[in-house]
Amino acid sequence: MKFRKVEGGVTAAKGFWAAATASGIKKQAEKDLALIYSQVPAAAAGMFTQNRFQAAPVTISRKHLADGRAQAIIVNSGNANACTGEQGLKDAQKMTELTGKLLGLLPHDVLVASTGVIGQFLPMTKLERGIRAIVGQLKADGGPLAAEAILTTDLVSKITAYALEIGGQTVTVGGIAKGSGMIHPNMATMLAFITTDCAITPSLLQKALQYTVDRSYNLITVDGDTSTNDSVMVLANGMAGNPIIEEENEDYHRFLMLLQRVNSELAQKIVRDGEGATKFIEVTVKNAATELDAKKLARGILTSNLVKTAFFGEDANWGRIVAAMGQTEVELYPERVDIYLGNLPVMQAGQGLDFAEEEAKEILKQKDIRIIIDLHMGNAKVTAWGTDLSYEYVKINASYRS
Amino acid sequence: MKFRKVEGGVTAAKGFWAAATASGIKKQAEKDLALIYSQVPAAAAGMFTQNRFQAAPVTISRKHLADGRAQAIIVNSGNANACTGEQGLKDAQKMTELTGKLLGLLPHDVLVASTGVIGQFLPMTKLERGIRAIVGQLKADGGPLAAEAILTTDLVSKITAYALEIGGQTVTVGGIAKGSGMIHPNMATMLAFITTDCAITPSLLQKALQYTVDRSYNLITVDGDTSTNDSVMVLANGMAGNPIIEEENEDYHRFLMLLQRVNSELAQKIVRDGEGATKFIEVTVKNAATELDAKKLARGILTSNLVKTAFFGEDANWGRIVAAMGQTEVELYPERVDIYLGNLPVMQAGQGLDFAEEEAKEILKQKDIRIIIDLHMGNAKVTAWGTDLSYEYVKINASYRS
Repeated sequence: MKFRKVEGGVTAAKGFWAAATASGIKKQAEKDLALIYSQVPAAAAGMFTQNRFQAAPVTISRKHLADGRAQAIIVNSGNANACTGEQGLKDAQKMTELTGKLLGLLPHDVLVASTGVIGQFLPMTKLERGIRAIVGQLKADGGPLAAEAILTTDLVSKITAYALEIGGQTVTVGGIAKGSGMIHPNMATMLAFITTDCAITPSLLQKALQYTVDRSYNLITVDGDTSTNDSVMVLANGMAGNPIIEEENEDYHRFLMLLQRVNSELAQKIVRDGEGATKFIEVTVKNAATELDAKKLARGILTSNLVKTAFFGEDANWGRIVAAMGQTEVELYPERVDIYLGNLPVMQAGQGLDFAEEEAKEILKQKDIRIIIDLHMGNAKVTAWGTDLSYEYVKINASYRS
Repeated sequence: MKFRKVEGGVTAAKGFWAAATASGIKKQAEKDLALIYSQVPAAAAGMFTQNRFQAAPVTISRKHLADGRAQAIIVNSGNANACTGEQGLKDAQKMTELTGKLLGLLPHDVLVASTGVIGQFLPMTKLERGIRAIVGQLKADGGPLAAEAILTTDLVSKITAYALEIGGQTVTVGGIAKGSGMIHPNMATMLAFITTDCAITPSLLQKALQYTVDRSYNLITVDGDTSTNDSVMVLANGMAGNPIIEEENEDYHRFLMLLQRVNSELAQKIVRDGEGATKFIEVTVKNAATELDAKKLARGILTSNLVKTAFFGEDANWGRIVAAMGQTEVELYPERVDIYLGNLPVMQAGQGLDFAEEEAKEILKQKDIRIIIDLHMGNAKVTAWGTDLSYEYVKINASYRS
């Protein structure tokens, strides 16, 4: 499949505008408000945190997505509007009302997201002033600005876009994301916004989103914690002019691959920017009985603090990988398991090998480290990504609010 | 109930001897071999790691416990004899054979445990020399020495003993434990050995062990990882002369409370010595629907890296407690939940309170921090213990093997 990389993130696809501004939630006039807008009504889909405490904007956006349509997304950073009770719901609702009013849309066609500190009310006066200002700043190349405005502890913006021929037309999918801590399978303090000019029904859009989120954001982990606010939202406005995708035909599969490409890339960018991360760790579990088993094992390894600190210390302590796998609930035959550090076999058939420590050191010195686990049970295979655990991680998270 | 604290740990109860020696597994002539011996055959019980990769000594000890009887326990530190395949099993078996031969016991009456690095074969020549030496060093006050010899990254020995009148006689329960990392509910790299002169049947001994382990070692967490080697073993030699406990009568319940006292104290000692811990965190979840729910939530909070780093940083970031609770699978009503930091309410009915930051700071500055979660759902209550996550934790674990 011939993917073509394009610029612009959420404004790469036809008919999308975006803007960013500093509304005063964050200190020092940093950008903290982003707006994404489609010139025409769009099919819309979303996936949200599995956390039982759901922030107010999650509740409102779920409701607004019920009809599978939306035309704008308003996002603030610096305050999560979570654990804010009735007042929080009113505030989130008000964000969609005001944005809608200024754009000539129903509140129901506006989605909302927030990220930042939990348990404080939004400063609505500042925020309303910000929304009034941002609407006039929408522009066709606003994607990179929006990518900046949604960040919190992130060090770099996460933005990407690709184009692919679908149904005789060039279809573009672009996205922006944020997240560097509280990143964990099943959605963490991460937000991702995707726009596309593909013509597709809302139900297939939702299906494609689900499939690709499971194989991208749900395969990454930074610290094992999920948040109250995680959201992935996608708008598809049909302006590419492709024949509308209404069934799971070849066009659908091409769109799926395109969306997967964008989500995979954003997910990996999040891990690479993981709080205090000095290593990018890729774990492949192969020949598992089921994909779910492989996923659980890969996550088990990537969330173990003992594994993570060993990688930070560049220590070939593969015994910790074994312990981490063994404490998942996955059925396996210990006496069949092989473990490779890069290409170096360190355990074979459940037994430690007498490998060259210098060779292991060489592999562990790299920023990117690959681990392969062979279970010798079935045919399922999953690759997942995570980080090490460094002094810097502790430092960042010991003083986040101050 | 009138518990009386006594000295001696595993040699506090009548008829138990212990010894320790340096066999050369650890560098610098540190003690790395311990032996516990009962002068008469004893009822025996054990609980072992839930990890799917089980070390060789775990397999052998399980087998030797099948008849509910044993008379000695041989333990080495510095090498876990895990992921060592057939050779590992032979070595563990050999440890019991040699110890048994020198003590005039069947191998089947000897239990074995190992802790340390995973994936290396035991240095059997050194170990056999050590076993030959240690048997001659058994003594009635050897408990504290044995407590030292089983340590790895621990900073202090964990030892305790209590006595209580049962059936008209003074019954003593004493124990030693090790563990400071890989500590997590369902048994972690922790070993605990308990001896008692109580007369009790093997099946009730096993039942009492299970009950108390669930309410002690299974309620503590340091880093969320469990290991290949975790074991708790108990020998009951009946030398106190109490009428043998054969049913769940009052004597049984008194013994249960005595055993609980010893196991709780050892469990808390392990947490206090948690790798790099600067805080001792007690989480009480009350008014939960079930005890299991309360346990899952308490563990969820205590294993969250974000919660742990916030405590290290003395930051009243209770939003992370909320996020940690919400990502467990426990059903709860977010709009009912109250959270207290010590006595200070920080969230009420699911909504953040405007508390005094200075008051929170004062509470967080202490070494011991208490968190109370009130779910307002039912009557179940659980208290669990854990630590913060410090620079020191990362440091210790980044370079464990070197």
